[in-house]
Amino acid sequence: MSAPAPGITLPKGFLAGGASCGIKRSLRPDLALLVSERPATAAGLFTTNRVKAAPVVLTAQQLRDHAEEARAVVVVSGVANAMTGSEGQEDSRQVMDATAKALGIPFGSVLHAATGVIGPRIPVPKVLSALPALAAGLERSPEAAHRAAQAILTTDTAAKETGVSVRLSDGTRVHVGGMAKGSGMIAPALGPAHATTLAFLTTDARVSRPGLEQILHREADRTFNMISVDGDTSTNDTLLALANGAAGGPLADDEPTLRQAFGAVLEHLARAVARDGEGATKLLTVRVEGAHDVREARRAARAVASSLLVKTALFGADPNVGRIAAALGYSGADFEAERLGVDLVEGPRRWPLISAGMPMPGLENGQGKRLHSVLQRLEEVVLEVKLGKGPAAATAWGCDLSYAYVQINAQYRT
Amino acid sequence: MSAPAPGITLPKGFLAGGASCGIKRSLRPDLALLVSERPATAAGLFTTNRVKAAPVVLTAQQLRDHAEEARAVVVVSGVANAMTGSEGQEDSRQVMDATAKALGIPFGSVLHAATGVIGPRIPVPKVLSALPALAAGLERSPEAAHRAAQAILTTDTAAKETGVSVRLSDGTRVHVGGMAKGSGMIAPALGPAHATTLAFLTTDARVSRPGLEQILHREADRTFNMISVDGDTSTNDTLLALANGAAGGPLADDEPTLRQAFGAVLEHLARAVARDGEGATKLLTVRVEGAHDVREARRAARAVASSLLVKTALFGADPNVGRIAAALGYSGADFEAERLGVDLVEGPRRWPLISAGMPMPGLENGQGKRLHSVLQRLEEVVLEVKLGKGPAAATAWGCDLSYAYVQINAQYRT
Repeated sequence: MSAPAPGITLPKGFLAGGASCGIKRSLRPDLALLVSERPATAAGLFTTNRVKAAPVVLTAQQLRDHAEEARAVVVVSGVANAMTGSEGQEDSRQVMDATAKALGIPFGSVLHAATGVIGPRIPVPKVLSALPALAAGLERSPEAAHRAAQAILTTDTAAKETGVSVRLSDGTRVHVGGMAKGSGMIAPALGPAHATTLAFLTTDARVSRPGLEQILHREADRTFNMISVDGDTSTNDTLLALANGAAGGPLADDEPTLRQAFGAVLEHLARAVARDGEGATKLLTVRVEGAHDVREARRAARAVASSLLVKTALFGADPNVGRIAAALGYSGADFEAERLGVDLVEGPRRWPLISAGMPMPGLENGQGKRLHSVLQRLEEVVLEVKLGKGPAAATAWGCDLSYAYVQINAQYRT
Repeated sequence: MSAPAPGITLPKGFLAGGASCGIKRSLRPDLALLVSERPATAAGLFTTNRVKAAPVVLTAQQLRDHAEEARAVVVVSGVANAMTGSEGQEDSRQVMDATAKALGIPFGSVLHAATGVIGPRIPVPKVLSALPALAAGLERSPEAAHRAAQAILTTDTAAKETGVSVRLSDGTRVHVGGMAKGSGMIAPALGPAHATTLAFLTTDARVSRPGLEQILHREADRTFNMISVDGDTSTNDTLLALANGAAGGPLADDEPTLRQAFGAVLEHLARAVARDGEGATKLLTVRVEGAHDVREARRAARAVASSLLVKTALFGADPNVGRIAAALGYSGADFEAERLGVDLVEGPRRWPLISAGMPMPGLENGQGKRLHSVLQRLEEVVLEVKLGKGPAAATAWGCDLSYAYVQINAQYRT
């Protein structure tokens, strides 16, 4: 697997672009377009929230009806188009229809996502007037992929994109690219097939619809479903993958290297979303080992990564190990409190924060001060939890909770 | 039911007191004692956290072995005595034993709770040296009850206590009193019989053990199990009720007025805990109606009261109705998004924030500004949610999330 390379146009036969159509008052880019030169197999995961935005409903419908003929994804940022009723559905339909017309492709081949404030409607005329130029200016360059990755952001501070290249067992070289956005309203899933935030993946491998779905579900459960910024599951979460087969070669459904490539792209993007959590100053990685099964390992890892008390302690660089133990204790995962172990890991170094259920000696004075300095210094804090009950492991990603989180989310919008 | 009157010594035959023994560096009161002049029936609810503090383990044991002979509750604040191993158990046993000796009662009649930092041990000598004077100075006065209520606090900004007086069907007048502490590490329960924070209730009614347990479970599920400050379930949560029968009269197990009196005391204390959430400036009350069953109503109400995005919006007085709808949408409660209704209620006035699944018109400009002013003014924000699916209702209580919450919890302790 080669080093990460930019974005959704790394796989052959994909074009991208981004534009400012005026949805955002700041005139930052707010309209993104991703196009496959040939019909692509598509698979998607959507929010399990009962309040679903219009683009989620319409795109899920498209995948049911036209999953083998996807050609384009059009994304608006700034408004969610959620709680907008039948008028909101009509707005999204118009955006998709105009995209189809601008590209000269069937309506059924257009997918759609949105992100932003819940309530307001899409300013459709602004989108429609920007689409023709955006469609005409699509490119395969990394710069074009980057413009698309920029145009899907909301409160994010940085674009999130990556790409990898792998060789299949028959020698065919295939690529997987991806971009994502997400900074707030981000929570681990409750259901088994749930994606948080917006994420779009492309590959030039040849994959069947069921094969693509299987890869996506399996790898999203391990990555996007294991991140949390605030515990709030959005109305707009969408994860889409397009496989256009442009690399040729045999059907790659069962190629472990392809699945691993998807996994690497999803993990890169998921970590980037957690790291860019609203107001975050540190990435928190929680590895849990020794659980009865993966389900319990995930619950335990998520509980620590989501705990407000752990998150605020992390912001203060406070080695408050009791809060970590308490979060594990209410996670629902089975373990004996007397056998619990938690290490802080920094490369080859380890600090045993909790051993046999007891806090590290000296935490209230000298040792605590030393760990305070270590936590202050680290940009990524890695906790390794040993439950001591079984063979299963899982990793969750989160971030600290800062004053800036409160500021970003408490500001009255108008 | 008469107006609330102070505290745990309102029922006959109860004495209380509080002292500073030096656990807290600030020299604030940190040792509380509650005593029944005669053996009392006792019932308790404890944290479901797998990491349980020593006092939780020991007191649960006492209730199993000596539930009809409770005489005293000794509470230390400042240290949780959790994650302290067998030495911590021995510390708590010494505190209980010294309490028994100071009062001249059997060890089996002493209950015990603790709250504070996880990890450090109880400074037993300090507690032992303060106990004799505390035991000798116990009183029935409201002032003594208040001293006890003060001595159990940690980050709380105010004591939480109340009492009510009711007449049973045979004319016997009985009393129920209570005190509680809790400001952080407060979360709704996951199990059916789970209490958050510390709360102690007294009554002079004559109640059997099963009767007292039934009243406590039922009313705690509706009150203490419906509050949330930060979603973190503590290692030390303890809710204890003592019934000493000093009022005389028949067995009151099935008296609705007694159950209602317990309910009123628990609701008063639960609301007081939510209102005093760390850094909180507003109490949030979420009433859900129209759910299929109480379980779903509770899930929906809790999701809104616990949502970080709702809590930060509330702090900013931002009428961000999309966040309320999103929280209901991921709560797991069944409803049609197109039929959802949410009102903001202020006495007789109502603002329909969401009707038939759509936000109130004008929220992005004039109407939004008006609601911003209303939310700024209110100290208690009451949301009424109509799911439109069935007959069940529930209420949850929470608070806003402010900069002060982050400050309180991010400070490095030493």
